[in-house]
Amino acid sequence: MVKVGIVGGTGYTGVELLRLLATHDEAEVVVITSRAECGRRVDDLFPNLRGYYDLVFQEPDVGTLGACDIVFFATPHNVAMNLVPELLAAGARVVDLSADYRIRDAGLWSQWYGEAHASPELLAEAVYGLPELNREKIAAARLVACPGCYPTSVQLGFMPLLVRGLVDTQHLIASSASGVSGAGRQANIDNLLSETADSFKAYGVNGHRHLPEIEQGLSDIAAQQVHVTFVPHLLPIVRGIHSTLFAQLRGEAEDLQALYEDWYAQEPFVDVMPAGIFPQTRTVKGANRCQISVAVPQDRSTVVVMVTIDNLVKGASGQAVQNMNIMLGLNEKAGLHQIGLLP
Amino acid sequence: MVKVGIVGGTGYTGVELLRLLATHDEAEVVVITSRAECGRRVDDLFPNLRGYYDLVFQEPDVGTLGACDIVFFATPHNVAMNLVPELLAAGARVVDLSADYRIRDAGLWSQWYGEAHASPELLAEAVYGLPELNREKIAAARLVACPGCYPTSVQLGFMPLLVRGLVDTQHLIASSASGVSGAGRQANIDNLLSETADSFKAYGVNGHRHLPEIEQGLSDIAAQQVHVTFVPHLLPIVRGIHSTLFAQLRGEAEDLQALYEDWYAQEPFVDVMPAGIFPQTRTVKGANRCQISVAVPQDRSTVVVMVTIDNLVKGASGQAVQNMNIMLGLNEKAGLHQIGLLP
Amino acid sequence: MVKVGIVGGTGYTGVELLRLLATHDEAEVVVITSRAECGRRVDDLFPNLRGYYDLVFQEPDVGTLGACDIVFFATPHNVAMNLVPELLAAGARVVDLSADYRIRDAGLWSQWYGEAHASPELLAEAVYGLPELNREKIAAARLVACPGCYPTSVQLGFMPLLVRGLVDTQHLIASSASGVSGAGRQANIDNLLSETADSFKAYGVNGHRHLPEIEQGLSDIAAQQVHVTFVPHLLPIVRGIHSTLFAQLRGEAEDLQALYEDWYAQEPFVDVMPAGIFPQTRTVKGANRCQISVAVPQDRSTVVVMVTIDNLVKGASGQAVQNMNIMLGLNEKAGLHQIGLLP
Amino acid sequence: MVKVGIVGGTGYTGVELLRLLATHDEAEVVVITSRAECGRRVDDLFPNLRGYYDLVFQEPDVGTLGACDIVFFATPHNVAMNLVPELLAAGARVVDLSADYRIRDAGLWSQWYGEAHASPELLAEAVYGLPELNREKIAAARLVACPGCYPTSVQLGFMPLLVRGLVDTQHLIASSASGVSGAGRQANIDNLLSETADSFKAYGVNGHRHLPEIEQGLSDIAAQQVHVTFVPHLLPIVRGIHSTLFAQLRGEAEDLQALYEDWYAQEPFVDVMPAGIFPQTRTVKGANRCQISVAVPQDRSTVVVMVTIDNLVKGASGQAVQNMNIMLGLNEKAGLHQIGLLP
Repeated sequence: MVKVGIVGGTGYTGVELLRLLATHDEAEVVVITSRAECGRRVDDLFPNLRGYYDLVFQEPDVGTLGACDIVFFATPHNVAMNLVPELLAAGARVVDLSADYRIRDAGLWSQWYGEAHASPELLAEAVYGLPELNREKIAAARLVACPGCYPTSVQLGFMPLLVRGLVDTQHLIASSASGVSGAGRQANIDNLLSETADSFKAYGVNGHRHLPEIEQGLSDIAAQQVHVTFVPHLLPIVRGIHSTLFAQLRGEAEDLQALYEDWYAQEPFVDVMPAGIFPQTRTVKGANRCQISVAVPQDRSTVVVMVTIDNLVKGASGQAVQNMNIMLGLNEKAGLHQIGLLP
Repeated sequence: MVKVGIVGGTGYTGVELLRLLATHDEAEVVVITSRAECGRRVDDLFPNLRGYYDLVFQEPDVGTLGACDIVFFATPHNVAMNLVPELLAAGARVVDLSADYRIRDAGLWSQWYGEAHASPELLAEAVYGLPELNREKIAAARLVACPGCYPTSVQLGFMPLLVRGLVDTQHLIASSASGVSGAGRQANIDNLLSETADSFKAYGVNGHRHLPEIEQGLSDIAAQQVHVTFVPHLLPIVRGIHSTLFAQLRGEAEDLQALYEDWYAQEPFVDVMPAGIFPQTRTVKGANRCQISVAVPQDRSTVVVMVTIDNLVKGASGQAVQNMNIMLGLNEKAGLHQIGLLP
Repeated sequence: MVKVGIVGGTGYTGVELLRLLATHDEAEVVVITSRAECGRRVDDLFPNLRGYYDLVFQEPDVGTLGACDIVFFATPHNVAMNLVPELLAAGARVVDLSADYRIRDAGLWSQWYGEAHASPELLAEAVYGLPELNREKIAAARLVACPGCYPTSVQLGFMPLLVRGLVDTQHLIASSASGVSGAGRQANIDNLLSETADSFKAYGVNGHRHLPEIEQGLSDIAAQQVHVTFVPHLLPIVRGIHSTLFAQLRGEAEDLQALYEDWYAQEPFVDVMPAGIFPQTRTVKGANRCQISVAVPQDRSTVVVMVTIDNLVKGASGQAVQNMNIMLGLNEKAGLHQIGLLP
Repeated sequence: MVKVGIVGGTGYTGVELLRLLATHDEAEVVVITSRAECGRRVDDLFPNLRGYYDLVFQEPDVGTLGACDIVFFATPHNVAMNLVPELLAAGARVVDLSADYRIRDAGLWSQWYGEAHASPELLAEAVYGLPELNREKIAAARLVACPGCYPTSVQLGFMPLLVRGLVDTQHLIASSASGVSGAGRQANIDNLLSETADSFKAYGVNGHRHLPEIEQGLSDIAAQQVHVTFVPHLLPIVRGIHSTLFAQLRGEAEDLQALYEDWYAQEPFVDVMPAGIFPQTRTVKGANRCQISVAVPQDRSTVVVMVTIDNLVKGASGQAVQNMNIMLGLNEKAGLHQIGLLP
């Protein structure tokens, strides 16, 4: 039985890790930390978990965490980068769901996060945990940086087009929308139901922190520097990301439906929809699944790719469990059999 | 492997049966019927099921269905009562999720449903499928009438008080609220998002079809005729029932918290909340679970019981699977390990 | 032109006062205060007001406010009771939307609000601003305590029954539900969209601060001490209160439909629905209107009254403007011509 | 007093016309038609209007309608084109909110709507009712084709860029999202709350009926043939359109903020947001207002324009009233003073 630790278990990615791991036959959460809720039962904070866990939030402790086989960081940025070096030294492997190790260039990271990186020496070692791109590296990694929610959707959507060199890489467009849970379980007026429930807006247009991660990832995929205009929007729902991607085809359009179906045929968690059927956020709600459609409207030169994920599952905790499974040589699907909750 | 048939698989209880049974180790859906969608793939109608089923909707056929070990009716009322006699004769056992066999008195049924009952001879045999009340009878039944969603919540909430004779049985009050999925997957202006999304209202105040079922059930439980004022409301959410129950205590209040905790201590799917913590619909969303709180505000004589279930799970398809498990001697929890999707 | 001041303009009752008063022909907002947003344009915080106001939030100042004809307090409790004495002394009249002057008994107030009252000498003078009950007193008042949102709905719903002595006053039940805007524009995890959007729950069951206000008001109406079991619930919508009221009829039911229609026939903002039609929160959304239905299900002894208001309008800012109009001898409907936003 | 007729008053644009016109000092609705609801009181169908209208739905009749000064068609397509010729002959002027007269080319119309146009001889005369483009022609028109909701937002957003020739006209992109009320008050499973409330999806990607209207309008504006990739999405809210527009700048970016502010400085219903502030659908909810922001992320070559309207107001009934005001020489703002309902 794999011994799992979770740092920062009071947020939405924390409770989602607990939900998924409760059904994982080969892993057991043995420690979960929270400074603010230290001493409180986990199922008191999250009553959906009553009967599934007998855990109490603890102060983070390197000894306890370091004794785990794997430690998840379900924290805001700026926590993992301070604690990970000690945990690795203690022999634990780490899946960091925060942004601390996603960007390889420490200077670029500092520019977007407004502070120096605390463990830049680990940036080269950290593996970017998008299994559809890096499965083999993940298997061997001590430290995996789990991708952001928006970046997961954008990279999975553009990947076949970029690897195959079919589109102009300098004017990619990603018009994405996320449910409010993406903003985390933080007291913030902007995310009150009264501020968001009956509305839709763009935000971060002039620079969202996921932009450098997206451009780094797509540049890796395309094997050249790409430029993306990324406009995130806030959806009045709890869970779900929908990315609508636009690119200019370079030449004659080939059969993009076949390309996408073939590309992801062996991927357990990427589902290419039949031609003419477009993905919905609700069909992946609660599931570790990415659904993708591709279309070329009016047979012109602009290709449109639509991608949906649950931001808390394939966009965070589900992908983290998938990474853990790969790292530990378990069945990649273990703990990830949830079906989208429709309706 | 238990062979399962589903009649009427295009509604919300149908897709929910499929979602739950996909994770059931000992049961397999071998046939699903729909006249309207005959020939269409199930996962074309419900893309959340892609990869889980290779089924196509078929015309209902007694031969095919009768060869199943168990047949679920996920139909509106008036379907099961016509087909069930033949299926029982063919050797199948039946769990009917519709209202056809819930009311024992054929005359009363006709009064509320506006037509004659087609198989009144089965009403005496049909077992009312509330496991917390009738587990032993269910185990032996050929035909189980799965309770309605509102009645499940109201009966589980009042049960300890009524069995123990603690409250006035003539003036019970149930103020309940349901998500819109309770109205089914039917084209109906009243249930459009534009009509319901940003609103709340009572409906059916002068007589909802669940009233006679509730009064029959509570009278069975109390072993005397009870009277209930039942006011359902429509919630602007997809899933969830919340019942707020009021009753007048007959004498000195005993420790109702302990009464409820003891009463349901052995029940796998009823969860009594700690004192002072009230249930939410979201903590049981997607789960076969009933959460209950009891309170006596201001230490006066009015007891308040709050009950939540997911109307499609413990209020319908989950309870149906629970009944199947009991009927067939399987683990009662098989296929019912889903955890509430919070947030 | 009436000169209006608003203390505490950054909350939802503040922006709602501004929305309503923008269409009031005889009143002009000349000062609005906020310590936190001092110096910020009002329409920068609330972009729906762009083009309607050229106001900037100021520090509260007795001189400026005292020069107004009328001052609204759109603040949490504990602000007005400290500032109102000076404003009255300066000659301004006051409509307080907070709870500071709603409860006449200073000891009772302290018991529920956890502190001493700062100006108990004004409690006897303050008029409870429910126009349908106290119109004449309001006209003469210097200080009006605008009723709470839940209490407005409960009192308007029970009023005809209580004045006429038709029901048992010792076991009244109010099962109410409110949109999240009732919790104010405060950073609070509990009111995030992610915590509330897809759920329904009771809260404050063992004692909500509106309970003593409700019992005081209903006791005044009934001319005897009444007891109410009050259970508020949180609705996953922004605006709207729905109260479902239950009472036991004392004798033969008279024609309650006629009673209610006659009772409110002359009231400009109370609308009794036709028999069998039940109110919805959406039909009063944005409007200073209370819609009421009365029913006696199954012709038994329990009467059910359903009441809807918009908590921010008839439950707060609209009622405040209505009070202002009455106090100043203006047309009671001035500034209150908004029609419910349906759909 | 202007005498107003409304054909097809049972849909959402019908009830919205009634809401707006109830506050119009110089217009009175004298007749409203519906075949399906003939004989029913308008305020029985729409209880928000109780107290504002004493109207009953009538069968459409050319005599009665033709006697009106102006007739609104709030109907699906295919109604106006059959009735308008007679109404014009009778001397009425017409504002058609449907698609019947929006596209000048009868062949193109037939291609998208699947039938022959019934009165193609009027297509040349009909004025496209976008006041910001055609105010003078509207003033003189007998027949105004009120723009579609999506096209209104897309044209107002792109207009300054296209008139000034600043962007590549062959690869314009419009990623738009609409509330469900845009689908009308029609019984349709796809628009049930249970199907849409907790989800987001693209639809009509391969060809939405608003595409030819958008391309015709933008081509008129640009004085050359333009090409647009238009991807509409369905938002889980009742009201609101948000269009996110992308275009490639042809040369050096000028000060686009100043361009937009100047362009719309005199427009009463178009509001350019301050730099860095992005529009929300909620700040225009219920108001005849378009809010626009423009940005050039990362100072690259892709310009992003964000536009919000209420699809039922500036996207339909409000714009229709605005057109009526212009046609009849009334104050263009009459009946259009509603402020966005925030929160």
